[in-house]
Amino acid sequence: MTDLSPLLAKADESLPQSLERLFELVRIPSISTDPAFKADCQRAAEWLVKELNDLGFTASVRDTPGHPMVVAHHAAASEDAPHALFYGHYDVQPVDPLNLWEDDPFAPAIKEKDGRKVITGRGTSDDKGQLLTFVEACRAYKAVNGSLPVRITVLFEGEEESGSTSLKPFLSANEAELKADFALVCDTSMWDRETPAIAAALRGLVGEEITITAADRDLHSGLFGGAAANPVHILTRILADLHDETGKVTLPGFYEGVEETPSNIKASWDSLGRTAESFLGEVGLSIPSGEKGRSVLELTWARPTAEVNGIIGGYTGEGFKTVIAAKASAKVSFRLVGDQDPAKIRDSFRAYVTSRIPADCSVEFHEHGGSPAIQLSYDSPVLTKAKNALSDEWPKAAVVIGMGGSIPIVGDFQKMLGMDSLLVGFGQVDDRIHSPNEKYDLNSFHKGIRSWIRILDALAKN
Amino acid sequence: MTDLSPLLAKADESLPQSLERLFELVRIPSISTDPAFKADCQRAAEWLVKELNDLGFTASVRDTPGHPMVVAHHAAASEDAPHALFYGHYDVQPVDPLNLWEDDPFAPAIKEKDGRKVITGRGTSDDKGQLLTFVEACRAYKAVNGSLPVRITVLFEGEEESGSTSLKPFLSANEAELKADFALVCDTSMWDRETPAIAAALRGLVGEEITITAADRDLHSGLFGGAAANPVHILTRILADLHDETGKVTLPGFYEGVEETPSNIKASWDSLGRTAESFLGEVGLSIPSGEKGRSVLELTWARPTAEVNGIIGGYTGEGFKTVIAAKASAKVSFRLVGDQDPAKIRDSFRAYVTSRIPADCSVEFHEHGGSPAIQLSYDSPVLTKAKNALSDEWPKAAVVIGMGGSIPIVGDFQKMLGMDSLLVGFGQVDDRIHSPNEKYDLNSFHKGIRSWIRILDALAKN
Repeated sequence: MTDLSPLLAKADESLPQSLERLFELVRIPSISTDPAFKADCQRAAEWLVKELNDLGFTASVRDTPGHPMVVAHHAAASEDAPHALFYGHYDVQPVDPLNLWEDDPFAPAIKEKDGRKVITGRGTSDDKGQLLTFVEACRAYKAVNGSLPVRITVLFEGEEESGSTSLKPFLSANEAELKADFALVCDTSMWDRETPAIAAALRGLVGEEITITAADRDLHSGLFGGAAANPVHILTRILADLHDETGKVTLPGFYEGVEETPSNIKASWDSLGRTAESFLGEVGLSIPSGEKGRSVLELTWARPTAEVNGIIGGYTGEGFKTVIAAKASAKVSFRLVGDQDPAKIRDSFRAYVTSRIPADCSVEFHEHGGSPAIQLSYDSPVLTKAKNALSDEWPKAAVVIGMGGSIPIVGDFQKMLGMDSLLVGFGQVDDRIHSPNEKYDLNSFHKGIRSWIRILDALAKN
Repeated sequence: MTDLSPLLAKADESLPQSLERLFELVRIPSISTDPAFKADCQRAAEWLVKELNDLGFTASVRDTPGHPMVVAHHAAASEDAPHALFYGHYDVQPVDPLNLWEDDPFAPAIKEKDGRKVITGRGTSDDKGQLLTFVEACRAYKAVNGSLPVRITVLFEGEEESGSTSLKPFLSANEAELKADFALVCDTSMWDRETPAIAAALRGLVGEEITITAADRDLHSGLFGGAAANPVHILTRILADLHDETGKVTLPGFYEGVEETPSNIKASWDSLGRTAESFLGEVGLSIPSGEKGRSVLELTWARPTAEVNGIIGGYTGEGFKTVIAAKASAKVSFRLVGDQDPAKIRDSFRAYVTSRIPADCSVEFHEHGGSPAIQLSYDSPVLTKAKNALSDEWPKAAVVIGMGGSIPIVGDFQKMLGMDSLLVGFGQVDDRIHSPNEKYDLNSFHKGIRSWIRILDALAKN
């Protein structure tokens, strides 16, 4: 067994410098959805390229029609070592509403919170802090050994929070350069603060926007109320009827391709002791709202959903206006599991909505992306090695879990490059990613670096 | 019988000057809901006071905590003549969205439209054009006879479109000055372009705003979807279930105080030949949406409703955001008929909503006004005189109808001053009041003036 202590000691003593680099990256407001921050996205990519080149990678900014990719290569110490593609994203979510932030989202700092040290700022957890755990692990290897144990290709994306529009064309155009034995993706969370996790099942996603039009203008509800169609009524009825009384989604064919989770997997999840109270308690709730009779882990990892992400219609300003709106619209997403087909779900939803539109009203649909669910093998050697390495670093043994969110890149790697992905991340459930006051535990960052040191060593061995 | 021809001829020959005065008033953007137009509301009031004083009224601007009232008095030619309070409002609705206007809303003009001449601009129909039909009728009397046949008190309000906040206190403080034998209110529509109408039943109104809060922050729908309560789902279910499959409102006790319309009244409405196609066709619809098995006239005049006037929750901007919102809210109004009690309806709605909020979520209510329905006597002498006078002026006989909208002032006159109101107006269903491209038919204005000349004459007689 390799003695990893010099590498781990190096990571420990370099933590202040590692943090300073994270701060530099977080200070760049690389919000990919907002064109006003285009130059900042470019700047974040260039910052990463410089860091990787300084580390001995051959790194470059690669233009796309959207925000650029960062690609970097580094050979392994041994010719026999495997080749891993490491993926992360440097773009971040918007910060609105800004008034809910306790600290400037782009002025990162170390803060004491609930007795722990946390790193504050947009992107500290999703995904800048996470991707730097890997970069800093490589830095420790280079500093101590002068080499890396695994051949590494790095791919950093700048459009993960805005639909990854350029990703597929880029993978397709650079297939030979990017293909490796497997991918490492660091964009996920731990089970809890003591228990690292590897995600082996990820839900897919279908996004749809619908706009219902009734009258050809906004109407006075006194003159027309009771006789004229109200598109908000039509819409609320359609959305309400998407779920039955047991919480199941009512769309015809929706559960085609959905298998019951194997009982041994369910049992392992049950043994984690995550109750509705503890899971939902983090966000001020306590009662599971979805399908009845299933645990919160099963609901969020292994069951499909229909969710209204936004709705608007009529007068929504201050005060009151007795209008019947001409239009009402909603953004709806479906989380998919197993073999659910995104195209079929979209078609079923559109048919369901269309069938409920009165003959004198109309509906328009707008597509917002779709990707199938991913189910990785629970017993691959790569997964087993990583599981053991993580278990050495953290107080508790690593667990293999499901994930509620979709990471479309994992599907793209599988479909386009024939690679499975190992999903290892050090986020926490209270990191408030996508919300005001995002943070990353200092411990996640520090032990994340140490974890990658261990995983890279394990992966290098047969 | 009085020979009204000199008075009618005077109205005819003065029409260009009458129109010029209407244009002057419409040019003042007296939008009462928007504080930016406060000075314009004051200016409109002052303009009216000057006009009335020039006509021989004793008129003054009367300050309120909101926009001012205009009050004016004029004696009758005979001591025996009745005393009428004439009510109108000089404030107008906002004009957004401005880009949908074909013409500047505050630069009135005569335009040829569908073969008819119309007066374009915000407030031409609601209510500046209407109130000036009465003022110009008085002007004809003064010019020809030097006197008025009826004792007149004028009350012009500047907050009708913004909740009439100052009205009740003003009526209360000036009860002795404002009380008359009956009120004349000119803020309603004709049956059609040939048939004048008197409104004898008006629906009441209850306005409520509800805000449902679930989690203590917006959530990522991947991490929490399927387990965490989505307030948009709760809200859409509550709103959808406000109506049953027959279109009836489901609130407990909602139909208490609602009587079936007498069959002879229903028959007279049916004989008007207004079909769903003709009524709804004006606004691009064709299928009645409310309670099944009732005519559109019954639905809008004599049946109570629940209507969602606005809804908002989650992400409603461009593109897509996979959030589960922390909050969702809706503005809901109920149109009341018969003896429905606004306070009981509000309580029933709040109890219904509260009972459907999961234990870990909460709801807040915000009240937006309430007024009971009004039912006037179908056979009062004032109504009969006005009906005959209108029938003399227009191609077809006047009809006594119901009205879908509430005019709270009518209830206030009844409750606070003990006066019934005669509701006569010359609007048309396609006047687009409260919408872009409001207009008033030139014929409505011209024959409206002539109508008041006839009505005042009729009212003066025993």
